[in-house]
Amino acid sequence: MNESSNSPDPANYLEEHFDRFVDELLEFLAIPSISALPDHAPHVDRAARWVADRLVAAGIGQVEELRAGGVPAVYGEWLEAGEQAPTILVYGHFDTQPVDPLELWSQPPFSPVIRDERIYARGASDDKGNMLIPILATEACLQTRGALPLNVKFLFEGEEEVGSPHIEELLEQNRERLECDYVVSADGGQWSESQSNLLVGFKGLCAVEIDVVGPNRDLHSGLFGGTVQNPIHALSRIIASMRDDEGRVLVEGFYDQVVTPDEEDRRQVAAVPHDDVTFAANLEVEELFGEPGFSTLERNWCRPTLEVNGIWGGFTGDGVKTVLPAEAHAKITCRLVPDQDPRTVAECLREHVASHLPPGVTATVSISESGAAPYLVPSDHPGNQAAGDVLTEIYGRAPFFTRSGGTLPICSALKRLLDVYTVIFSFALDDERAHSPDEFFRLSSFRRGQLAWTRLFERIGADGSTASISDN
Amino acid sequence: MNESSNSPDPANYLEEHFDRFVDELLEFLAIPSISALPDHAPHVDRAARWVADRLVAAGIGQVEELRAGGVPAVYGEWLEAGEQAPTILVYGHFDTQPVDPLELWSQPPFSPVIRDERIYARGASDDKGNMLIPILATEACLQTRGALPLNVKFLFEGEEEVGSPHIEELLEQNRERLECDYVVSADGGQWSESQSNLLVGFKGLCAVEIDVVGPNRDLHSGLFGGTVQNPIHALSRIIASMRDDEGRVLVEGFYDQVVTPDEEDRRQVAAVPHDDVTFAANLEVEELFGEPGFSTLERNWCRPTLEVNGIWGGFTGDGVKTVLPAEAHAKITCRLVPDQDPRTVAECLREHVASHLPPGVTATVSISESGAAPYLVPSDHPGNQAAGDVLTEIYGRAPFFTRSGGTLPICSALKRLLDVYTVIFSFALDDERAHSPDEFFRLSSFRRGQLAWTRLFERIGADGSTASISDN
Repeated sequence: MNESSNSPDPANYLEEHFDRFVDELLEFLAIPSISALPDHAPHVDRAARWVADRLVAAGIGQVEELRAGGVPAVYGEWLEAGEQAPTILVYGHFDTQPVDPLELWSQPPFSPVIRDERIYARGASDDKGNMLIPILATEACLQTRGALPLNVKFLFEGEEEVGSPHIEELLEQNRERLECDYVVSADGGQWSESQSNLLVGFKGLCAVEIDVVGPNRDLHSGLFGGTVQNPIHALSRIIASMRDDEGRVLVEGFYDQVVTPDEEDRRQVAAVPHDDVTFAANLEVEELFGEPGFSTLERNWCRPTLEVNGIWGGFTGDGVKTVLPAEAHAKITCRLVPDQDPRTVAECLREHVASHLPPGVTATVSISESGAAPYLVPSDHPGNQAAGDVLTEIYGRAPFFTRSGGTLPICSALKRLLDVYTVIFSFALDDERAHSPDEFFRLSSFRRGQLAWTRLFERIGADGSTASISDN
Repeated sequence: MNESSNSPDPANYLEEHFDRFVDELLEFLAIPSISALPDHAPHVDRAARWVADRLVAAGIGQVEELRAGGVPAVYGEWLEAGEQAPTILVYGHFDTQPVDPLELWSQPPFSPVIRDERIYARGASDDKGNMLIPILATEACLQTRGALPLNVKFLFEGEEEVGSPHIEELLEQNRERLECDYVVSADGGQWSESQSNLLVGFKGLCAVEIDVVGPNRDLHSGLFGGTVQNPIHALSRIIASMRDDEGRVLVEGFYDQVVTPDEEDRRQVAAVPHDDVTFAANLEVEELFGEPGFSTLERNWCRPTLEVNGIWGGFTGDGVKTVLPAEAHAKITCRLVPDQDPRTVAECLREHVASHLPPGVTATVSISESGAAPYLVPSDHPGNQAAGDVLTEIYGRAPFFTRSGGTLPICSALKRLLDVYTVIFSFALDDERAHSPDEFFRLSSFRRGQLAWTRLFERIGADGSTASISDN
């Protein structure tokens, strides 16, 4: 650690000013910055200004509002540690989810209250509470030490909750300004109050729709039954041909680019507690299901999946209608792992449909534009090593290394456009009802996060320049 | 033939009164007796009175209105031929289909007009024109000969176009009164203007819905993908397991009760002109499809079929929603042939689903009450022999023996409840747009039908009593 005994202590500063920080968070949470609702655009703007002002108040001299697609983001930088010191980009977002169903809230969602050592408000956990923390940690370091031991850039966006539709435009327009060794995201979470984790992987995504067309009109199933192929039967056969009866994907080429988890990956996954019996009971299924040879967490985190999201065709109303339908349709998404490419996998699906097409029908496979690349940061990336050391110190035990079966496009976009990895360093917990009524954030997490970020700054600063690793 | 040279001729009578008969049909067609629309119930009643009055005017002494479920039917009888003479029951219906889309009609559907030797109006072909014919033939015989050579009962119903929901109740309530050697239906049609046919078979029907249930809620396909069975995949596997890739049904027991068409059946089917190339071109399919070893007509007429009528589950809107759905559903109907039993086949489907259920989901198979038994009248049944002789004489060539892949519940109900077969003797043609805008009936068919019915009466009367065949 870089801590100097004759400097004032950032930890003490954080304790001394904790009540003020809480008041500031309450003020921040009172801004109804719902990005999904156009009526709330002025509130999103107000939240951006609040963040910009708070960066300035923390001692960040260079602060400015960026815009892409008319939506505000806030950029700030403190680069006085010099060219030899490492540079990180802190990421977070100041927009929130909508509040429906409003009647299930115990108090108005933008009238924050503290109850039982928790702050209740929309956005408390996701992500205002967490994104404010690195700003406060910065203030504590600057106020006590007069400087940070590293260069810090900040990028807070205002449309994460609607899928960051302009983030790529923003990153491209500001590529040079955003240059850094790696990103540290204040959007994410920990495993539990007593166990930390480092999230190292997200899956990619590709999506297709299959449209099967048979006769030129819906036919009477009596007058035409037995004479022509039924598009629903054809589609069912196509779908059935895509996975075997144990759940392996049978689409040719699907697994070609898959990096199979190595021993260390599997050890890290196995170290994470998971109980199949409880998991199945929570979903009320008799048994779990999926690709043989992998544990449930491995299947969800490390193996690509193919799921039909929707299917429709013919008569779906009440009663009986004896129709032999003209068309049938299905939507499919695949969750991808390194090094699968969304477009390549989608083309494999297209070829599979063509080569498994039953006679008497035609099929079209439309590939959605909403593909996303998989993302995996090495668990021994210097940022993860630094974050892991700090978390180990603070929680008294090593973090889990976890992945998600979900997709976080921001990490893929940062890797692709800025060629940098993202370390997730955030203190939300799963039970804090992000996206649901009565969202809250623990005061204990707010306090612990601030200390953790000051230590992370110190730990990264002690590493010296990590510029060479950005090619990783 | 029973024709006596010194009697006045029914054929001459029909010619002499043809213009009046046309005027009467126009009057009948002007009654908007749409059974599907509750507002039109008074018109259905009015049509019933019109039919009853017309039977009386034709010389039928015993006429009365029957009711079941509040809907009128008209019964009439002329039984003066004596106990030794055969007794037939003439069937038809005086209700019509709705008229939508009204804007596609060239004239108001209940303002009948004659154009190019065709009567245009809703119900002209199906079935008012055709059901009026045997009444006119009866009048011609009674007016010229003073008697019929057989006993004739008439049953005209008022809700055929809504599936005859009360016909079974009506038949049961009037079982004794309706006793006959067989039924001759004035609802049906001929092959073409120059070729007659006798329709000898209809398929039965059973209908099921399959509901597959997986996890207790829709899941995020990223956070849960690869861990549990997907109900859409499971349902697709179930459906795919029900037929092989050539269209044979693989449901165990499905074919057990099927009477395979014999040489004579296949000869009769092969005698009916059918062109696969034109048939496929009309439906715009590359190729036809179905159970190997049978021609297209055999598959449609003589072999049972299993068709999915509808399927649905998960997200079916625009765009991408990464859901792993909790449920998936399909509706299936099977068209049945003798001696398949709807309930037995439905139970086979239920057992098939149970024995082919993929792991991790449950499935329920609900059996619809709308099952119907298959119907087949022997092509050499005395009624078909009599009708065949008359048609051969009038058309100058032997009729085709055809079947339908559709279901005509009235024939099954008459067989089951009264233990009598039905001979179809009607003069509609396929191009007359029954159920569509600009429905019409050819004056030539109206004329030819009247003559054919008088000859049918004579031919059946010449047969003598056929009472013994009703056990057939």
